Amino acid sequence: MNRLALLVLAAASAPLLSAPAAAQFTKPDDAVAYRQGAMSIQDAHFRRMAAMANGRVPYDQATAVANAEVVDFIVKLPWAAFGPGMVGGDAKPEIWKEQPKFKELSDKLETQAGQLLVAAKSGDVGQLKTALGDMDETCKSCHDSFRKK
Amino acid sequence: MNRLALLVLAAASAPLLSAPAAAQFTKPDDAVAYRQGAMSIQDAHFRRMAAMANGRVPYDQATAVANAEVVDFIVKLPWAAFGPGMVGGDAKPEIWKEQPKFKELSDKLETQAGQLLVAAKSGDVGQLKTALGDMDETCKSCHDSFRKK
Repeated sequence: MNRLALLVLAAASAPLLSAPAAAQFTKPDDAVAYRQGAMSIQDAHFRRMAAMANGRVPYDQATAVANAEVVDFIVKLPWAAFGPGMVGGDAKPEIWKEQPKFKELSDKLETQAGQLLVAAKSGDVGQLKTALGDMDETCKSCHDSFRKK
Repeated sequence: MNRLALLVLAAASAPLLSAPAAAQFTKPDDAVAYRQGAMSIQDAHFRRMAAMANGRVPYDQATAVANAEVVDFIVKLPWAAFGPGMVGGDAKPEIWKEQPKFKELSDKLETQAGQLLVAAKSGDVGQLKTALGDMDETCKSCHDSFRKK
């Protein structure tokens, strides 16, 4: 890779690393454990809300809000762990080649997590279901492009 | 195990599962991924503060606060993933046999994470270092009793 390409890549990556809380990693394995951990936590709380939205467990507004709060917090964390060179796990190389697209999808997911929390607070199970569906589509879209099968 | 012992165990475990946001797990593997994920995230943000407290990277109050906020949030999550039967990973069987001790240490860590956030907000690097040291001792004490080497 030439110097210009490296500079372009560094500039494209910078917004992902600018958050003050962004964890920093010296070893790719640590970054992989961190981002996979964040995904596991999101997934667990997302599924608990989905079970309520789909009627598999009784709907409870306080439980929905508490779970949405976790998702809304955790959703901001994994992206910093996809910094330059932090390859491994199920991450496709496309993440580092298509940074604007990756950033667009991660930003979209963060926005949708905020909307999910609003929906949970509304107490309307229909709104919760819609917000979960929107988020699920973004998860799938990003995984289709950037996660190994 | 007899019925009485099971009831006692269930009663001892109940406080760990009572938080409304507590993720619920049907498979031990999911619980293991969740709690290991939470530990990885805590560890990454803890180390970033430790690097500042030890002078390996420049101290920055806003960065310390942002990292302490993540630790203070995440520290509440892993315990629900040590529910009955959720064995595996590095967890020793003692976790399920000595629930009061496990709960005492996890409660202590949560309290110390709150104190860490106060220390980070103080802007005093000495307070930050002390709070990190206190938390580190509790981590080690719990790992010595309940984590496989």
